[in-house]
Amino acid sequence: MPPGGVVFAENTEEIALTVALCAEHGVPVIPYGVGSSVEGHVLASAGGISLDLSGMNRILAIHAEDGDATVQAGVTRKQLNDALKGTGLFFPIDPGADATLGGMAATRASGTNAVRYGTMRDNVMATTTVLADGRILKTGGRARKSSAGYDLTRLLVGSEGTLGIMAELTVKLYPIPEAISAAVCTFPDIDSAVQAVIQTIQLGVPVARIELLDALSLKAINLFSKTTLAEAPTLFFEFHGSPASVEEQAQTVQAIADDLGGTHFEWAARPEDRSRLWQARHDAYFACLQLKPGCRCFPTDVCVPISRLAECIAATNEDIAQVGIPIALFGHVGDGNFHLVVLVDTEQDMKEAAWISQRVVERAIAMEGTCTGEHGIGLGKRKYLRLEHGDVAVEVMRALKQALDPNNILNPGKVLPPIT
Amino acid sequence: MPPGGVVFAENTEEIALTVALCAEHGVPVIPYGVGSSVEGHVLASAGGISLDLSGMNRILAIHAEDGDATVQAGVTRKQLNDALKGTGLFFPIDPGADATLGGMAATRASGTNAVRYGTMRDNVMATTTVLADGRILKTGGRARKSSAGYDLTRLLVGSEGTLGIMAELTVKLYPIPEAISAAVCTFPDIDSAVQAVIQTIQLGVPVARIELLDALSLKAINLFSKTTLAEAPTLFFEFHGSPASVEEQAQTVQAIADDLGGTHFEWAARPEDRSRLWQARHDAYFACLQLKPGCRCFPTDVCVPISRLAECIAATNEDIAQVGIPIALFGHVGDGNFHLVVLVDTEQDMKEAAWISQRVVERAIAMEGTCTGEHGIGLGKRKYLRLEHGDVAVEVMRALKQALDPNNILNPGKVLPPIT
Repeated sequence: MPPGGVVFAENTEEIALTVALCAEHGVPVIPYGVGSSVEGHVLASAGGISLDLSGMNRILAIHAEDGDATVQAGVTRKQLNDALKGTGLFFPIDPGADATLGGMAATRASGTNAVRYGTMRDNVMATTTVLADGRILKTGGRARKSSAGYDLTRLLVGSEGTLGIMAELTVKLYPIPEAISAAVCTFPDIDSAVQAVIQTIQLGVPVARIELLDALSLKAINLFSKTTLAEAPTLFFEFHGSPASVEEQAQTVQAIADDLGGTHFEWAARPEDRSRLWQARHDAYFACLQLKPGCRCFPTDVCVPISRLAECIAATNEDIAQVGIPIALFGHVGDGNFHLVVLVDTEQDMKEAAWISQRVVERAIAMEGTCTGEHGIGLGKRKYLRLEHGDVAVEVMRALKQALDPNNILNPGKVLPPIT
Repeated sequence: MPPGGVVFAENTEEIALTVALCAEHGVPVIPYGVGSSVEGHVLASAGGISLDLSGMNRILAIHAEDGDATVQAGVTRKQLNDALKGTGLFFPIDPGADATLGGMAATRASGTNAVRYGTMRDNVMATTTVLADGRILKTGGRARKSSAGYDLTRLLVGSEGTLGIMAELTVKLYPIPEAISAAVCTFPDIDSAVQAVIQTIQLGVPVARIELLDALSLKAINLFSKTTLAEAPTLFFEFHGSPASVEEQAQTVQAIADDLGGTHFEWAARPEDRSRLWQARHDAYFACLQLKPGCRCFPTDVCVPISRLAECIAATNEDIAQVGIPIALFGHVGDGNFHLVVLVDTEQDMKEAAWISQRVVERAIAMEGTCTGEHGIGLGKRKYLRLEHGDVAVEVMRALKQALDPNNILNPGKVLPPIT
């Protein structure tokens, strides 16, 4: 679904001019960052122009004392973190890909650090946004909190370019922890691993990351990253704090893991060991792709209340046993969020992948969870929006879209299901 | 501004029925919790009925493993915390008054714990909300995060009953810290105190509370609470964590305070000492009222980026020196949020109070802050909404109001300034 053309915008005014022209001629506008979204957000399903914001890559201000930075929407998270070197601060949200901050805000992205630092929902303080008629809207501000009026910033975060195009963002920054350590632990089954996570959180251990990987993911990682990790359900932890606090956190978690049959508890306090470990985790997606050379990936993600997580994964594994394609499972278990990396090659594989995806989504929603924890709706999950939120919520979303984009030119066809 | 009548609702269906009837007859509906809001939110400025939700006081579910609870909107924060006894969990948001959770959500309330636990914006996961035509809307869910569609929950939080009436809420809970300690420290001036706060946050000390009180507030507290605290700019701290972590946090903060001329650093690790200290802080408002027996209070609050806080307070103190009425200043300095408690008796006092309030609001906005950190807009601060957010944002807010409440029956006249 290629667009009719591409416009490369380098500042807010160029976005506004483009949108105003498109509004005049009824042409759809689809904002584009680096194209790392996975639910078809950037496809020109209704034609129109792709508005490439990758040239909007200037960091406009860093306020170290206040812990915030203002950037153009095309700045990527790694670029921002590079610019923060020497300030003692970092931007923690890490969805894996080196996505643009505008794209991450638009899809309400999160990733491995969300259990400690929240998602883009929590970390965008202000935006400059171009509306459907080309007007320039300022939302939010640099105060840490405000009760002044409707929360337009949060309405835009997660709206996937359908209500406005974010041109600039102000995001929160955090002090780089004095000490960081990581740990890995293998569990006899998924249920014990999830119990360890629940107990860790209930004890108030302020873990920065807790990631769950299944046996197949570990096998893929070992092959890809030349590691020798046990090929069993595994938790990866990261702890941030003072040296004493980090050590205490790791000890508390180790004691919990021991009680639940955890084995191979391995610490990584040295930066190089920690990097190796997390690099392996971050490469899990690519490692899985290598399980079946030449294949493509059909990714999906859901999120459930953590008390239902083990049950949700167990039932999903029963489904997986019924299909012939390789499916790895890993995720941000501290939030109850997990991904399936479904490897597909043939038409038949695609059918099986679609079946698995539908099963896990319907199961997550039945467990009071969500059809997507961090990927967004795009085109791929529109059909679940009504199931998850109900008819009235979809009608309200449609009324908001109508109020802000009455001619439906901003990323049309995304998020909202077609009217039936 | 009394309402034409009061309806006492006890469940969601009664709210829906009431709103549907009011919609039919064009009668304004003003939701009411315990009436502790301070910007005129519950006044019947356009007539209509007051919808009293205090009978909606049932706790519907506590999910200890997931760290959330679902309550009716009339449940107060203290009632919820009483119900949580024995679970090891608590609900941290504490605006001072024992407000209802529905009211707190509607005004995007926060209070002393926000620097660690966020505001109501961050802690409402889901709502059941009655729309302007009586339809019942479900927003959000119990997953810890979701990218599924527009964030209707955040749109309702802070909308002050003008977009919908929240009937039920699901809120986040947190583990009760294993250890809690408190500390007090006096500083030679406000600037040093604020510097201590900035350094504390930049070092990543996870303080749970940092409160600033000025000399007059301390004088009032000493008179009211029979304490003997130094009557000078003072910080109150609270630390949550493991016993070792709490001690380490306090030591780090003490070292910072020492460097900045802090004196009288006093620890309170014993629960009774800590309670006495925080009771004194919580009584500050009432203590200030006693400075001028028989007077009333004209409260105001603003919030600025913390780098501007000392400057904002210094300029405000210059204004205070020009009026004859007593004005105490204290606030949630970790967020850059402070309150003025302006004591008024006569018409002339009211004029001076209005002048002070306007000065501090305009100054906060000029410093990229907000006209209200946690009280809301109500009637009292409508005139500043455009100054803070700009014309386009106010037009967008009006478009959202029009989309969700086209006949303007939900708390009419609040939040949005009159069309001029």
